[in-house]
Amino acid sequence: MSTRIAFLKGHGTENDFVIVPDPENAIDLPPAAVAALCDRRAGIGGDGLLHVVRSAAHPEARKMAAEAEWFMDYRNGDGSIAEMCGNGVRVFARYLQRAGHVTEGDIAVATRGGVKRAHIAKEGDITVGMGKALLPEGDVTVSVGERSWPARNVNMGNPHAVAFVDDLDHAGNLFAPPPFSPASAYPDGVNVEFVVDRGPQHVALRVHERGAGETRSCGTGACAVAVAAARRDGADPGVTGTPATYTVDVPGGRLVISERPDGEIEMTGPAVIVAEGEIDAEWLETVNP
Amino acid sequence: MSTRIAFLKGHGTENDFVIVPDPENAIDLPPAAVAALCDRRAGIGGDGLLHVVRSAAHPEARKMAAEAEWFMDYRNGDGSIAEMCGNGVRVFARYLQRAGHVTEGDIAVATRGGVKRAHIAKEGDITVGMGKALLPEGDVTVSVGERSWPARNVNMGNPHAVAFVDDLDHAGNLFAPPPFSPASAYPDGVNVEFVVDRGPQHVALRVHERGAGETRSCGTGACAVAVAAARRDGADPGVTGTPATYTVDVPGGRLVISERPDGEIEMTGPAVIVAEGEIDAEWLETVNP
Repeated sequence: MSTRIAFLKGHGTENDFVIVPDPENAIDLPPAAVAALCDRRAGIGGDGLLHVVRSAAHPEARKMAAEAEWFMDYRNGDGSIAEMCGNGVRVFARYLQRAGHVTEGDIAVATRGGVKRAHIAKEGDITVGMGKALLPEGDVTVSVGERSWPARNVNMGNPHAVAFVDDLDHAGNLFAPPPFSPASAYPDGVNVEFVVDRGPQHVALRVHERGAGETRSCGTGACAVAVAAARRDGADPGVTGTPATYTVDVPGGRLVISERPDGEIEMTGPAVIVAEGEIDAEWLETVNP
Repeated sequence: MSTRIAFLKGHGTENDFVIVPDPENAIDLPPAAVAALCDRRAGIGGDGLLHVVRSAAHPEARKMAAEAEWFMDYRNGDGSIAEMCGNGVRVFARYLQRAGHVTEGDIAVATRGGVKRAHIAKEGDITVGMGKALLPEGDVTVSVGERSWPARNVNMGNPHAVAFVDDLDHAGNLFAPPPFSPASAYPDGVNVEFVVDRGPQHVALRVHERGAGETRSCGTGACAVAVAAARRDGADPGVTGTPATYTVDVPGGRLVISERPDGEIEMTGPAVIVAEGEIDAEWLETVNP
């Protein structure tokens, strides 16, 4: 491992990341080093790590290099590998802009989930293409404590159960996974969103992320909620030819989700760089000998 | 506020801090800015902030300047002011050493709790003088869920209840304050330590810190536990003239606590700098306009 490693810290709606710029893919980042860097007390701290590599320099991204110059080698906070992270793409794009690698406008980002399209607006927000939603048939129920609610099954590449509730406080403590039924609806578990209305095409959510507990923001969850709210309100862009756009307040900020007539969902929100510097080489050797 | 602010991040037994070097006390750090910097997702993240100022440059420390060149202007993570933090003094001393302001050996650090003595050992650990313990008379009981235990009342400038238990898991979820009795023992609440033996003069603890929940380390708590264990084991340095030294494992690492015949308690443990860099000026203006 190189002895001086640059990093930045940033977040998108308080989904936060350690960013490690490494254009030539020269830095070895085994799971133990990633977990140490993301440790909130013993390291720098983050929900995940964005390893910024030129697509041409990374074996997993080389085939995307013609289409997307930069590869988001995304790691979860525990060091494991993940395909994609919508809030992460916004922060990734913000870093590329800050470093002078891209300018405002449309860009493409290579991810393990394929090439993602993003747009950096002059005013600051960044839009990311999140793919299409699937809406499996069948009634689903989720519960917290004594309460239970009907939920909409929405798949954004990962599974969601979206429950409209009267009061977000009714969801109580979302540390543990809310039980659901039938079990067959989500054989691998599910992300659960609890949603209230805030106004016309404006909702607020709380989310339990599978494997992580309650979080400040979940990009695919916000998309699932916008689609469920649109269908509940009788809006289906694929039928009417009119986009459906919802403002979705998450605990960590505000996202705007737009579903186009072709089914593509775009998520728009902030991305912020908080600080930058260098990781202490001596420390890193102790955690990653 | 100046437009470029240097920072470091470090920890002592996973009690972690944002360090802001500011020798001439030129940086305005109102509570909102401190809270934003210590926010783990929207900021850099830390249990607290160590503002490093020359004693001569700070109105609260000027009278200590002859004795201690540097003042630890300690802030809690919510932006409020605190007198002292034992783990913080170790990290503060490590920063002074790294910056070349002090070398190995004995140093003095000005704090709102007075001048504290520290010793930077060649091997890396740092020792901090933590003052004396008071042992108020009277039986105390603490409980978690259905279980309850007798506890020793120890005051280290702040109140502690030390309970020896068979298994640290019995303390269960320490997020909420463990109830205690009698109420008169701790009119302002209490820090509660649960302790098991690991070997001769070697114990391990879990701690509920008043106002913070379960934490990875509590310096005064480790001292209180060492004194309670010594008395339980029949050791009283004030009577025997022999120091009592205990190894105290906290969730975030290992501390060694030594009580001298004059009652002074010294805490020895690691202090680590993880990274350093600059806070983004644009971001800081948004959180502290």
